[in-house]
Amino acid sequence: MEYKFLLDEEKVPRAWYNIVPDLPTPLPPPVHPGTGQPLPPDGLATLFPQALIAQEACGERWVEIPEPVREAYLLWRPTPLYRARRLEKTLQTPAHIYFKYEGGSPPGSHKPNTAVAQAFYNKQEGVKRLTTETGAGQWGSALAFACRLFGLECKVYMVRASYLHKPYRRVLMETWAAQVVPSPSPETPFARQLLAENPEHPGSLGIAISEAVADATSRTDTHYALGSVLNHVLLHQTVIGEEALVQMEMAGEFPDVVIGCVGGGSNFAGLAFPFIREARREGCPTRFLAIEPLACPSLTRGSYTYDFGDTAATTPLLKMHTLGHKFVPPPIHAGGLRYHGMAPAVSALVEAGIVQGRAYAQTAVFQAAVQFAQAEGFLPAPETAHAVKAALDEALAAREEGKKQVILFNFSGHGHFDLKAYEEFLAGRLADHVYEPAPVSSFIP
Amino acid sequence: MEYKFLLDEEKVPRAWYNIVPDLPTPLPPPVHPGTGQPLPPDGLATLFPQALIAQEACGERWVEIPEPVREAYLLWRPTPLYRARRLEKTLQTPAHIYFKYEGGSPPGSHKPNTAVAQAFYNKQEGVKRLTTETGAGQWGSALAFACRLFGLECKVYMVRASYLHKPYRRVLMETWAAQVVPSPSPETPFARQLLAENPEHPGSLGIAISEAVADATSRTDTHYALGSVLNHVLLHQTVIGEEALVQMEMAGEFPDVVIGCVGGGSNFAGLAFPFIREARREGCPTRFLAIEPLACPSLTRGSYTYDFGDTAATTPLLKMHTLGHKFVPPPIHAGGLRYHGMAPAVSALVEAGIVQGRAYAQTAVFQAAVQFAQAEGFLPAPETAHAVKAALDEALAAREEGKKQVILFNFSGHGHFDLKAYEEFLAGRLADHVYEPAPVSSFIP
Repeated sequence: MEYKFLLDEEKVPRAWYNIVPDLPTPLPPPVHPGTGQPLPPDGLATLFPQALIAQEACGERWVEIPEPVREAYLLWRPTPLYRARRLEKTLQTPAHIYFKYEGGSPPGSHKPNTAVAQAFYNKQEGVKRLTTETGAGQWGSALAFACRLFGLECKVYMVRASYLHKPYRRVLMETWAAQVVPSPSPETPFARQLLAENPEHPGSLGIAISEAVADATSRTDTHYALGSVLNHVLLHQTVIGEEALVQMEMAGEFPDVVIGCVGGGSNFAGLAFPFIREARREGCPTRFLAIEPLACPSLTRGSYTYDFGDTAATTPLLKMHTLGHKFVPPPIHAGGLRYHGMAPAVSALVEAGIVQGRAYAQTAVFQAAVQFAQAEGFLPAPETAHAVKAALDEALAAREEGKKQVILFNFSGHGHFDLKAYEEFLAGRLADHVYEPAPVSSFIP
Repeated sequence: MEYKFLLDEEKVPRAWYNIVPDLPTPLPPPVHPGTGQPLPPDGLATLFPQALIAQEACGERWVEIPEPVREAYLLWRPTPLYRARRLEKTLQTPAHIYFKYEGGSPPGSHKPNTAVAQAFYNKQEGVKRLTTETGAGQWGSALAFACRLFGLECKVYMVRASYLHKPYRRVLMETWAAQVVPSPSPETPFARQLLAENPEHPGSLGIAISEAVADATSRTDTHYALGSVLNHVLLHQTVIGEEALVQMEMAGEFPDVVIGCVGGGSNFAGLAFPFIREARREGCPTRFLAIEPLACPSLTRGSYTYDFGDTAATTPLLKMHTLGHKFVPPPIHAGGLRYHGMAPAVSALVEAGIVQGRAYAQTAVFQAAVQFAQAEGFLPAPETAHAVKAALDEALAAREEGKKQVILFNFSGHGHFDLKAYEEFLAGRLADHVYEPAPVSSFIP
């Protein structure tokens, strides 16, 4: 009886899969907020190295993975694919539940799949220093790890509420030699202004992005790195799905439903995009579920329109599902899902009817996470727990209908840093948050 | 260039290796404190199931692993063996450094290797409930996980100082449905007495063992489980070394030195015992280093004598290196190494000159851990960091001598629960502790 599907090192993919040329309609390009015209490629040159800018606009289906990036991947890849037989038994479901386990990387999540690639290309171009933002800290710690691996300095603007209340991700970043400051910080003009208005400002991901971008554009030795949303980030994450395709073949099944949680969309895309390609090629009726928090429901309640990626309105405009760039999500524990927007490629697939959004409330998500941990052992991060909840619901629906369903979800990260949230849940103190739309004026145009 | 050696699922060992028949002299048996005579096997029947009692006194070299235990192992085994090439480069050493990575299990350490076996045998004998003690929480969380897997209740007596200051391991145990109480607790007579003397008593591992044993002996549906020291625990951990033997063969090398940290001795034994067997068979001059904290140096400063395993003097007497059962170790962060005694089998190998003890101070150990994490990404638990420190010292010695040395150490657990300790180290606030011998009267006889 098989519980796990392992791959040899040589099965770590040698190319990333770019879904953009396979989209049913061309992806709307980033737009310059001043001119309203598509952004010329070099409009991003103060932020990103040429290699990543090229990947951002790439029309090729496959992008070769440079050998040093692949060698970094070998620290934690290939990752295992599990058949959750104990969970199936607990649920008494005819469904087969599989999960791809990305919690074994040094920072404990899927984030380093793109962090090491971004650090490598920046290093190659002679950049000395990277800036970024982080909420709960999964992305920040992944970039700190990657920068250390490739010998770059790293500065992380960490949402102040997390900086104060969740110090351990910060310490992890500092152990990897990154500099971490609470955002809003006194270091950038936009944030200084916010601090002047409110010295205790809790910060948000959108504000921290504004700061990291401002820092990067103010120094010639520095670039910026983003942990989700952009095409090149989603591209790098496809190693997850490419490995999982091979592993599902070993299991002798193809999923009826593929599930991932979505904040900016990268772990979902990383697992789902290769399966979307294969499902469309083979004509399989596989469903693709992108799971978001009810408190920050960009796919299910947002508008599909051009909006800024950050609060200070300094980034190019992206066509995406958005709650408005001034929307500050409620303080749910799934910090990585507290983002107003969505990856344009994921948004386009939702518009095309290929991907469906679904939103869950926080307590239901934690309930599912505990049920999963008690059956399978592994403790999901609060973000991951959204995907777990959907997998459980699909398995229970299969039981109702009495039909076998093959369910595959992305276990994007472990919850060993998130036990405060579990403590609140177990004590019955966890609150659900209601989504309240931001003022219309926060949309552009 | 190879960085990692992976095994197929089928390479998870089918038998544990029992070193006892291969020891140079017979292992001194446990002794009844009242009679001074060797304990009859059924003297342990109130605490352990027959299968484990048989393993404790087993004279056979190999013990078959039951299929349900092996299926549980498949959740995280086989574990990878890494070649730490980045660290070698940082150190500019001709040494080859390998580490066996046990941090990928659901609780994040090697402890479940024995926890799932113990839970299985108890379940098989109809036991409903297990009790145990835990310090920092690695063992308690492993047993909570294992009990949940096999459908047993689990009660953990957690050293009060950890219970209060390190709540997250407790929450992890509770998520796996274990009941956790601070020790000393009002629930057992010995501890009630301690609480009466000092209501704020910080507790110790020895006291918590006394409580867990008292709880187990007071109820017919309950057994006790120990996370280290005993022969059957060390036996179960040999899956680590058996896998590593195969992986070192894949790497085409045999270690010149094998290293593990020691509290009770189980992770060291798990890696080292199979290599001791092979080294002695082949006549290899491999060295075996058991690394302990300078604050709790049972191997390097203790006496080799019969002593109790717990503070209340309720367990059988074991012949071991001990600092005295009343010794309360200083509050170092490596909670898993704060134990007054040592596994009798490890002690016997030290006496025979096959294993050498070595002790390090806390700050030097954290320094090594940060250096390792910056080179290889993975963050060691404070216990594991002791082995890391020794591996670094061996690699630097090899550089001094200009000779290739093959170094293998056990990465017994990740440090994602220990970032408070890293925070103190990075802030320069970490103290070293001096060992102060306990009064002679704490020894028996």
